[in-house]
Amino acid sequence: MKLKVKNFNWLAGRPVVILNNETAKKLNVHVDDRVYLQFSRTKKIYAVVDIFQRVIKTGEIGLSHEISSFLKIKNHSYIEVSPSELFLAGKIIKKKISGEKLSEEEINTLICEIVHNNLTEAEIAYFVAAEKLKGMSMKEIIDLTEAMVANGNKLKFKERKVADKHCIGGIAGNRTTPIVVSICASAGLTLPKTSSKAITSASGTADVIETISKIEFTSGELKKIVDKTGASLAWGGALGLAPSDDKIIQVERLLNLDVEPQLLASVMSKKIAAGSKYVLIDIPYGKGSKIETKERAELFGLKFKEISKHFHIKLDFVITDGKQPIGNGVGPVLEMLDVLAVLQNKQDAPQDLRKKSLFLTSKLMKLCGIKNSEKKAQEILDSGKAYAKFREIINAQNGKEEIDYKIKALRPARLKKLIRAKKSGEIIEMNNKKINSVARILGTPETKGAGVYLHKHLGPVKRGEKLMTLYSESKIKLDDAQRFIREFKPVVIK
Amino acid sequence: MKLKVKNFNWLAGRPVVILNNETAKKLNVHVDDRVYLQFSRTKKIYAVVDIFQRVIKTGEIGLSHEISSFLKIKNHSYIEVSPSELFLAGKIIKKKISGEKLSEEEINTLICEIVHNNLTEAEIAYFVAAEKLKGMSMKEIIDLTEAMVANGNKLKFKERKVADKHCIGGIAGNRTTPIVVSICASAGLTLPKTSSKAITSASGTADVIETISKIEFTSGELKKIVDKTGASLAWGGALGLAPSDDKIIQVERLLNLDVEPQLLASVMSKKIAAGSKYVLIDIPYGKGSKIETKERAELFGLKFKEISKHFHIKLDFVITDGKQPIGNGVGPVLEMLDVLAVLQNKQDAPQDLRKKSLFLTSKLMKLCGIKNSEKKAQEILDSGKAYAKFREIINAQNGKEEIDYKIKALRPARLKKLIRAKKSGEIIEMNNKKINSVARILGTPETKGAGVYLHKHLGPVKRGEKLMTLYSESKIKLDDAQRFIREFKPVVIK
Repeated sequence: MKLKVKNFNWLAGRPVVILNNETAKKLNVHVDDRVYLQFSRTKKIYAVVDIFQRVIKTGEIGLSHEISSFLKIKNHSYIEVSPSELFLAGKIIKKKISGEKLSEEEINTLICEIVHNNLTEAEIAYFVAAEKLKGMSMKEIIDLTEAMVANGNKLKFKERKVADKHCIGGIAGNRTTPIVVSICASAGLTLPKTSSKAITSASGTADVIETISKIEFTSGELKKIVDKTGASLAWGGALGLAPSDDKIIQVERLLNLDVEPQLLASVMSKKIAAGSKYVLIDIPYGKGSKIETKERAELFGLKFKEISKHFHIKLDFVITDGKQPIGNGVGPVLEMLDVLAVLQNKQDAPQDLRKKSLFLTSKLMKLCGIKNSEKKAQEILDSGKAYAKFREIINAQNGKEEIDYKIKALRPARLKKLIRAKKSGEIIEMNNKKINSVARILGTPETKGAGVYLHKHLGPVKRGEKLMTLYSESKIKLDDAQRFIREFKPVVIK
Repeated sequence: MKLKVKNFNWLAGRPVVILNNETAKKLNVHVDDRVYLQFSRTKKIYAVVDIFQRVIKTGEIGLSHEISSFLKIKNHSYIEVSPSELFLAGKIIKKKISGEKLSEEEINTLICEIVHNNLTEAEIAYFVAAEKLKGMSMKEIIDLTEAMVANGNKLKFKERKVADKHCIGGIAGNRTTPIVVSICASAGLTLPKTSSKAITSASGTADVIETISKIEFTSGELKKIVDKTGASLAWGGALGLAPSDDKIIQVERLLNLDVEPQLLASVMSKKIAAGSKYVLIDIPYGKGSKIETKERAELFGLKFKEISKHFHIKLDFVITDGKQPIGNGVGPVLEMLDVLAVLQNKQDAPQDLRKKSLFLTSKLMKLCGIKNSEKKAQEILDSGKAYAKFREIINAQNGKEEIDYKIKALRPARLKKLIRAKKSGEIIEMNNKKINSVARILGTPETKGAGVYLHKHLGPVKRGEKLMTLYSESKIKLDDAQRFIREFKPVVIK
């Protein structure tokens, strides 16, 4: 609403505007609410509302000195004024700090304000800290999920069997997504899959797919791809699904905080916004992964299940072995080569990746009501149907049939170094975090061909046997990585 | 330390530098510590340390892509590198969030980093939230106080009887400080008194003193004034005493959070940094003041006492009536006129202000070992000695004897409006917060002469009797204030 300015120039101690009753009613604001004043593209400010009747006419706004001096605005100019819930958001955060439960409306206000950049990072930090220290009830987590979905874009598909899988993460390699998506889509399910890029790990699913495909789409483009092929393997970053999540995660990362209610709402909101009705959650556990004990993994899965019921989503979770990397390659190109080997049913395909992918696929298919899912999944993979579907998806994403050319061009980085076992014995540790670090030192995820190829997993090894091959485009990085391996021992033989 | 740059250009996921053992030892940093890189006055960045031996020579520093691209620095340039504890500070905050107790060293690191601007507001917000929600033990509060003092300037006086008084605040008017300081200094005590300006109240002690005196000094200048007259009535803002406090308060204010451990450490650190050995804390309580019940006021006072023991400070507290304003004037000039009337023993001086000032004075004198303090305090005030001392302090602060000229020039704002009681009865409420608001609407603290003069306090009143006079330089403000009074009723007659 455009209002005519009257500079009252009193020092209110903070930006304050004066409205009369009529104007306040039209703006739907009350005493102590916040309004948002926009004078030009760069000059904008929040202010607290005071209501006085006679000093000010309908259609006018009185500005305190704090605002007039900041905006440098003249009397009788016009300014765009809209209600803002900033002040209310502060009250809501304070309420959570005091340990009170928040209502659906309060949580929605908060998330809306975060999406509209009306909260500072410090204010978000207060909220995150309160969530962690005072906890959130299941109802609050559900309301939070709903608010995160509501304040963002949504994808819609007519098909009833829209499915998705999600892994809690923390495991090097472990690129099951392209395989699971290809088999499930081939079985007739719809999977509008969006993934993330690596933040601190060696590579994310989006980094891996990017080695042979475009990954950034508008929601309209994504819908077309999914409508055509039954699935997508896209990057989620540009779609604006539950965007409040990205802002909260940014603040959590300052201290690498692990805030369970936020994580639950984060995963669920992305799935709901993408239109999924059947969701499988993969929770790896074990030393060196995000969740260390089976009990915590189980409890975590049950919470997902409880939230999903509210949203009429069929959700199941599996607790998987997170002690060591899955697959041989760690790094975008190396992981894509693993994925292709499995899809192409090659002899030397990593069997752990194949097995885990089939396991997750059959679980998801079963969840969607497909009978004999285990057998069917294997049949689709073995027959080459899954690979055909994968090619279809990638070609749809690229807009042309160039997958063979893209695959042919895939190669690991130029320089390599083979590392052999220094003694015979048992490989008792293969640390996910440390192997991720080695890959990053070698240049991942930026250098797509860099990374680690694991010749061995946990189990017996003989002196002189191949342990791993390091790939990099830089001699220095290759040396650095070897030094890191010597110092931090990602693989322990006993 | 100047180091020679080698751009390694690997993507580390965050800014990382590589040093060899010798350089790391010289800088006193280890793997995962933070360093601070300064390339030019504006280009600076924090980075995490990695140590590798062969890639890098002594005196060289390897930069990750994140740093090279940000600094746009060439190979073989030199860059200034110093150890920084940022990363460690993050770990310490996380530790407090998890509810663990912090050691003296950890608290000191944190405060040191805050003073050196190495923490973001969001990181400070995490710490404040953790303090509030996980609490601080008495030992932690003491360590926090000590760290806040250590990381700032300190004043030192040879005299053994350095005394101070502090009021928790929240009461309109209540300008006892100039009176208490003048009497005590006249009795031979040393009072390097520093006060604050108003933030959300009508006026702070510093605003009141500023109506007739300079108030901003370096610590050297302040010391001279105190050495000469035995006391000061200065503004604390420019002295750098416990500066971490100002930064933490800024973050607390985002949500107007009331964090008790921080408040305790804040008050105590300022007193200790100012060299005080005898401290009297005034804790007003009652509806509409900061502390609502007598029990909470008592508990709060006992905590101050416990902290003071550790610092070998003799501390006492008094719990006073905080139900209504003290004195007649609310606003810088009006309050100064009250103070002068009391010091000059005028017939019409506000007796509540005189009484409370004498009460606080005798308590503080007694704490400092002065016998018959009650009688002596009154004698010093009645004899005019206190006023003489006050003149001496103000003249010392102004650097010339111009107090009479300054006092003569003191006058309330030009426009005034007398408000009379609309009915006979009992004044049952005189709300501190609302009267502060009226004064601010009238133009305080910026307009020194603006404010409210109270003709009545709680008690009986007759219809048509004078209730208060409003002073302002602006007709609009005068109207606004009257409207506020009609709407929010700061004074209730029943």
